[in-house]
Amino acid sequence: MELRKGLEDIAIKETSITFIDGELGRLYYRGYSIFDLASFSNFEEVAYLIWYGKLPTRHELDDFKSRLAEERSISDEIASLVKRTAKTANPMDVLRTSVSMMGLEDKDDGELITKSMKITAKIPTIISSIQRTRANLDVIEPDPSLSHSENFLYMLHGSKPSRERSRMLDVGLMLHIDHEMNASTMACLVVASTLSDIYSSIVAGISALKGPLHGGANSEALRQFMEIGSQENVEKYVLNRLSSGQRLMGFGHRIYKSLDPRAKIIKDYLSKVSKDEETQRLFDIATKVEEIGIRILGKRGIYPNVDFYSGLLFHFLGFDLDLFPTIFASARVIGWSAHVDEYLKDNKLIRPKAIYVGDLGKKYVPIDER
Amino acid sequence: MELRKGLEDIAIKETSITFIDGELGRLYYRGYSIFDLASFSNFEEVAYLIWYGKLPTRHELDDFKSRLAEERSISDEIASLVKRTAKTANPMDVLRTSVSMMGLEDKDDGELITKSMKITAKIPTIISSIQRTRANLDVIEPDPSLSHSENFLYMLHGSKPSRERSRMLDVGLMLHIDHEMNASTMACLVVASTLSDIYSSIVAGISALKGPLHGGANSEALRQFMEIGSQENVEKYVLNRLSSGQRLMGFGHRIYKSLDPRAKIIKDYLSKVSKDEETQRLFDIATKVEEIGIRILGKRGIYPNVDFYSGLLFHFLGFDLDLFPTIFASARVIGWSAHVDEYLKDNKLIRPKAIYVGDLGKKYVPIDER
Repeated sequence: MELRKGLEDIAIKETSITFIDGELGRLYYRGYSIFDLASFSNFEEVAYLIWYGKLPTRHELDDFKSRLAEERSISDEIASLVKRTAKTANPMDVLRTSVSMMGLEDKDDGELITKSMKITAKIPTIISSIQRTRANLDVIEPDPSLSHSENFLYMLHGSKPSRERSRMLDVGLMLHIDHEMNASTMACLVVASTLSDIYSSIVAGISALKGPLHGGANSEALRQFMEIGSQENVEKYVLNRLSSGQRLMGFGHRIYKSLDPRAKIIKDYLSKVSKDEETQRLFDIATKVEEIGIRILGKRGIYPNVDFYSGLLFHFLGFDLDLFPTIFASARVIGWSAHVDEYLKDNKLIRPKAIYVGDLGKKYVPIDER
Repeated sequence: MELRKGLEDIAIKETSITFIDGELGRLYYRGYSIFDLASFSNFEEVAYLIWYGKLPTRHELDDFKSRLAEERSISDEIASLVKRTAKTANPMDVLRTSVSMMGLEDKDDGELITKSMKITAKIPTIISSIQRTRANLDVIEPDPSLSHSENFLYMLHGSKPSRERSRMLDVGLMLHIDHEMNASTMACLVVASTLSDIYSSIVAGISALKGPLHGGANSEALRQFMEIGSQENVEKYVLNRLSSGQRLMGFGHRIYKSLDPRAKIIKDYLSKVSKDEETQRLFDIATKVEEIGIRILGKRGIYPNVDFYSGLLFHFLGFDLDLFPTIFASARVIGWSAHVDEYLKDNKLIRPKAIYVGDLGKKYVPIDER
């Protein structure tokens, strides 16, 4: 039996959802370039594309958007859980528990995608409630007349966002919808393969995304820019860090050996938009870190990944740092559930083995003779 | 890249926790035969053995038992969740949400095993509360002077169990503590490998165990005996079922090609104990199904597995049928967390791949031209 810890280079499934071209730095959702989608599409349309495998007609999209918008409210029980725990608990623990509670509450015999739409619609309500409760602000009810991203920022800030800002969140979310296989998607598949329900799968995905090796990198990249403080400090910081054998946060990716297209897209948006002073300063630091980092690491195929700029984007849009993994999860629910849906069309229980390396045939000794 | 759906015959780790000898029908925990443990040991001692790798001295065991016993109470929030949902929700959904809530509530920087002890201690309180709430009975507070299994039955029935009955539950739980690798343990490992917390891992394990391909087989085996109704119907039922290509519930195992030692142990206990009329009838049916099943399937290495008799055991002890997977989980928490602990000593992020089989380079068409 082969020992394959980490399952590196083992394919758990075939997929027609996402393709990553690591050499050229390209990403495709259902065959469409992420660059095209980020330029011309929007969050709801891409969600539809990922789930149903095709771009919607206008009628299909309108129907889909209103179905999503109708599902944004959370139950009183989840609202009270959030209220009770927002100030003290890890937001990913609150999210994991809330989605588990959604599963417990959902008595409909709906299909997998319908249930996944409910989860997708409700997570922004939970995230905004956490942030506002902590700040002693009233929780804002969702507004079904707004798009997913407009409503998300509206619930967060209590006022309707500018077109520019909601567009930035829309693109930011779109870029997080799927990324082929990874630990959280694998957790979803393992659960789904026992024919457990979709809520259980998503709860497992959130559980995995919580880990610092998975969902925590963007806030760490942002903290790094904050720590550097100003553009003048960048060169010294980067050289110190690398010469002492530490990683540059937000640099390097298992598959991309060139610039992560998602980093490029967010950077372009951030460079064009008018920024407050702090964001401008952090952005200037980030671009300088990128420049120097690539000069040193680029020849080894180590470039900025999506986390390098996404934290800055979420910070600019006003989200608390420790909420970043929950935002990531709010979009990734779509990829998780699409992969589960695809896997279940030809399900096979995921059941690896272990190699026994301990002793055998030990003699049981009564307790008073030990 | 190899496509290995299901991960069959791939070892995800080395282990010194559990060894299954499928040819001879033997099971070892930390090198000790399950037959010896079922005869001489008890639930708490085996839990200690699995977690710490050795049998405890009397002092160690006393200390360990009292630490476990102290942790049985659940928070008011979890108690009220159970109360609110016991009558309508799937018990595994309630358990998943409750354990997720424990994680959210636990602010201690305790180590993994300490946290796993808390979960292990509290799950029986949740299970008993579900059953009593449904039956409109008062919930019984845990009694720290009782052993794990005595207290479990005490909280379930409101009176102290006989030595015989608590011993049977003790053995039944012991047999479910670990079983090497499987879907739920894999779900725990995937989550843990991102360096997420132990509650998140256990929540993923429960999520996977909920699936009918994993944790639901013992109640189905019992339902089969109920459906058969009497010994006279067994032969016809079994022949009908097998000739129409259906499985015999509780028969067959991926690894065991002879009698599952756990089935043998439970059967022996059930055969010796004085049974109520219904249990006697179901037991007689079960032994007849076993006899005929083995006559037909034994030559193909298909024998009764643990689920064949464990449902009957839990039913005899007075648990509702749909609670069986939660009882399974209450014991398996120990195996899940021990495997996580072992994996984390030399962690490697679990991150398989997928093989892209879809189209590429599709042209984005504006919505009104679709």
